[in-house]
Amino acid sequence: MNTGTTGQVAGTVDGTGLKATIAPDLARIEQAMEADLAALTSDMAPLLDEVLRYGLFNGGKRIRPLLTVLCYRLCGGGKGTSKVDIYRLAMAFEYLHCATLFHDDVIDQALTRRGRPAVNVAYGETAAILAGDFLHTRSMLLVGQGGGIPALEIFCEATTAMVDGEFLQLHNASNYNLAEADYFAVIMGKTARLIGATCEIGSLVAGADAQARQALRNYGLHLGCAFQIIDDLLDYQGDETKTGKSVGNDFREGKMTLPLIIAIDRAKENDQKRLLAMLVNTEERKGGFAEACTLIAGYDGFTLARHKAEEMIAEALAQLRIFDQVAVQQEMAVLESLANYVLYRNK
Amino acid sequence: MNTGTTGQVAGTVDGTGLKATIAPDLARIEQAMEADLAALTSDMAPLLDEVLRYGLFNGGKRIRPLLTVLCYRLCGGGKGTSKVDIYRLAMAFEYLHCATLFHDDVIDQALTRRGRPAVNVAYGETAAILAGDFLHTRSMLLVGQGGGIPALEIFCEATTAMVDGEFLQLHNASNYNLAEADYFAVIMGKTARLIGATCEIGSLVAGADAQARQALRNYGLHLGCAFQIIDDLLDYQGDETKTGKSVGNDFREGKMTLPLIIAIDRAKENDQKRLLAMLVNTEERKGGFAEACTLIAGYDGFTLARHKAEEMIAEALAQLRIFDQVAVQQEMAVLESLANYVLYRNK
Repeated sequence: MNTGTTGQVAGTVDGTGLKATIAPDLARIEQAMEADLAALTSDMAPLLDEVLRYGLFNGGKRIRPLLTVLCYRLCGGGKGTSKVDIYRLAMAFEYLHCATLFHDDVIDQALTRRGRPAVNVAYGETAAILAGDFLHTRSMLLVGQGGGIPALEIFCEATTAMVDGEFLQLHNASNYNLAEADYFAVIMGKTARLIGATCEIGSLVAGADAQARQALRNYGLHLGCAFQIIDDLLDYQGDETKTGKSVGNDFREGKMTLPLIIAIDRAKENDQKRLLAMLVNTEERKGGFAEACTLIAGYDGFTLARHKAEEMIAEALAQLRIFDQVAVQQEMAVLESLANYVLYRNK
Repeated sequence: MNTGTTGQVAGTVDGTGLKATIAPDLARIEQAMEADLAALTSDMAPLLDEVLRYGLFNGGKRIRPLLTVLCYRLCGGGKGTSKVDIYRLAMAFEYLHCATLFHDDVIDQALTRRGRPAVNVAYGETAAILAGDFLHTRSMLLVGQGGGIPALEIFCEATTAMVDGEFLQLHNASNYNLAEADYFAVIMGKTARLIGATCEIGSLVAGADAQARQALRNYGLHLGCAFQIIDDLLDYQGDETKTGKSVGNDFREGKMTLPLIIAIDRAKENDQKRLLAMLVNTEERKGGFAEACTLIAGYDGFTLARHKAEEMIAEALAQLRIFDQVAVQQEMAVLESLANYVLYRNK
């Protein structure tokens, strides 16, 4: 097992080893964010500063900026006289992620985020919308400054895809005959495209060739899809004491996620009718979560959704094969561990 | 008087002449927006496309992109083999402006915008927030692509200043002893900085020197401040049949704008106490608009606020003196006319 201090990592690292290995990068990402806010604060409204700090330093896992840093080094970045401040660039992905969380929580009228009052609750909807806009702008600037126009283009494409995915989801609402392809179109836009962009931009600024960039973009896309599938599974099967979220929200809201889509597709006529009848009736949805779980499990909705996530992770890992295993052993091990972590996380 | 077709403009042009003179540029700005949306639409959620069209093509005056185009040509842009698609760059300012309107209308729970249901009413708050985010991203990309990182930096600074100005306004709410300087700090951020940026970026991409850039930035800043002062005056004195807005909203909301700030500052103790007493009491504010107007007028609040706007416009016009009056006669005339239009507009 890797202790995280020697840089000697063989294969994947387990949870504890992973944590120790990534700790120095995570610390530098936090430092970069702190330094950026400190530099901004001098001529900024004090309330804006307070809202930003509250929303940004809330125990987030910083997976997106970490991926940027790892992919940068995987492609040879950080050696020699490179002038790229990769941590400053990487934090842009956390800024954008937080901006979308601020706005999502307004949209969903969420009360909490990571066990604390959400920004819209703590500071009001106006502050949440505006602070989201601030981080949105700042993230674009950081990507442009750190990666030039090519990076900005990748970033903007992913960001507009995110909005597009949300609209697709709006469009799909109350369509209870969704195909798997519709589900994947939504999660690609909503989740995977930005994670693909974090990886691709990390490799881009390292000067990677087209093949390496494409491989890391694909790694991120597949990782992102698997991440979302597991998220949707946890909404049915998670341990509330670990996830901090109550199970069954998606079903009660009539949200069509993969286990349900698979079950409806595979169910015999009577069971299919029953699931659809529950979905179209708000009251039945609220009371029928346990029954729905039984039906979904009976048609292997959970198992098959998990298989999909496993396929995605296998595909993500396959993308890493083109890289030299020896020269970038540690980065490779962390990327592999992150992929496996996504699959086996319980929160 | 200029007919707008010959390009022969002497001095400023009147309302009709101005309209005819700027019509070709306005038409090309509309075309650029149409072309951009058409290119995006192919792989976009149909609802997103619908919301964007509804929110963008709503009778907006397109003053911001027009300023970009005019400042570009004023600085010699558009001659020779320049590859800048100035209309594509210019529309970014309309995109960002609309993005902020979408979000502002959610924040203010506005019912109408330019005589039609606001986006948040027509399509819901979720759509308004997300479509705003989409335009925000798209505007950054267009500025980056059209003007490079230097333009992106100017644009992002103005956009973050806008959010900062909103937070300053939040901070100032229920502070009824505001100084003029506090008011100007808010309107600089909220309104003037973006207009300054539209002008500066137009000159930047034309290859203008630092002096010309600074002059046009200052032109925009002063124009923007005057615009906001007149906006605030119209909220007290506008003709509702022309502005389409009911008067007295700012006072009823306890919003501290220039006429009120000046009056409180100049009022005798009793009148000052009376105004402050009205402001701290929501019910009194609602019923006391006519009384407040009398008090403000008695202390020349309206007249002195208008004088401030006139000073701003004079300063904006003074910035134009460094440009060659002959070579860019038409652009100069339009910039002068726009400045005067801001002062004498009644809607």
